[in-house]
Amino acid sequence: MRAFSRDFQQDLRDLMRWRRDVRRFRTAPVDEALLADALGVFSLAPSVGLSEPWRLVRVDSDAARAAVLANFEAANADALDGYSGDNAARYASLKLSGMREAPVQLAVFSDEGTPKGAGLGRQTMPEMLRYSVVSALMLFWLEARAHGLGVGWVSILDAERLARDLDTPVDWRLVAYLCIGWPEDDGDTPELERLGWETREPGLEVLSR
Amino acid sequence: MRAFSRDFQQDLRDLMRWRRDVRRFRTAPVDEALLADALGVFSLAPSVGLSEPWRLVRVDSDAARAAVLANFEAANADALDGYSGDNAARYASLKLSGMREAPVQLAVFSDEGTPKGAGLGRQTMPEMLRYSVVSALMLFWLEARAHGLGVGWVSILDAERLARDLDTPVDWRLVAYLCIGWPEDDGDTPELERLGWETREPGLEVLSR
Repeated sequence: MRAFSRDFQQDLRDLMRWRRDVRRFRTAPVDEALLADALGVFSLAPSVGLSEPWRLVRVDSDAARAAVLANFEAANADALDGYSGDNAARYASLKLSGMREAPVQLAVFSDEGTPKGAGLGRQTMPEMLRYSVVSALMLFWLEARAHGLGVGWVSILDAERLARDLDTPVDWRLVAYLCIGWPEDDGDTPELERLGWETREPGLEVLSR
Repeated sequence: MRAFSRDFQQDLRDLMRWRRDVRRFRTAPVDEALLADALGVFSLAPSVGLSEPWRLVRVDSDAARAAVLANFEAANADALDGYSGDNAARYASLKLSGMREAPVQLAVFSDEGTPKGAGLGRQTMPEMLRYSVVSALMLFWLEARAHGLGVGWVSILDAERLARDLDTPVDWRLVAYLCIGWPEDDGDTPELERLGWETREPGLEVLSR
């Protein structure tokens, strides 16, 4: 059994503390070999029934980038309409995506029609396919950060429109849109906390049954 | 900006490789301080709008354990009914949960009614709350494994029945049921692969748009 040192355990905690949702990227390119290597951790993620349902689309062309940005801007304007007063002003001041700057952008899907795994573990909870994809992208997020790369997860999107614009197979469902690159600034405090949108709970309460 | 050493990066990859879905536990107890410390990483997870929607229930009492086990056994019998021939025989031979042995068991919920985050980032993708919970439990899974603890994720459950049996608030939705303890055996190959249920893809294909 592989054991891990106290030093490693402390660094791991630091990595989790320093993993941030990055929305401010430098435009410097990301080395392709580094990116490919980091993406390799998808294959190490847990997946229900070993279904490996993650499907990745790299969004690179001007046309695809423009479509996704327009999608975000429309969804963001709709979201802003839902706030009023101070909340609206505060929402409007937030930078919620790095889509204009991030050199690498990935749309991450779940293949809801995969025969892999033969349905094991997802009869009662079919959402386990999407959860497997989230598990995989969390490994990637940590792996990227361990190499200094920032990742930002954009969810202010019309998922069906994005799938149509990217012309993905009909069974694929969008789980996440990731912006990836070298972070412009950095810190260990979430931007939403720093800017006063929300506070963090001081601890974790565990009920008992 | 916090940087991480090459040694750390290699150990992190090892941790991801050795993280397993554990279904075979020793009955030795888990130190409470170790468990509490590992659970602390939930608070380091990304959450949509800083909503921190994770809610944990420790399932400890004989009555609660019996209810969850009965739930699993019913769902597992139903699942077996859906297979035939070789697949049915193979399914029946799998050990799919460590619920009888795992000393610590946690039901992990998403609070779908939380006001935290004020809805930011989840107007178009309300599933982001559940995805935030999955993100948090992945950090916990890695953290636990770095300390030698095994975690197994059971999804062969009727989620609504489980919530009823545990008498949780009406807005809480089950995301995962985790079995936690010291692993009986170990290896870096998923049990479903070792036992021939499914094979792993040799690599990751990334489409381009």
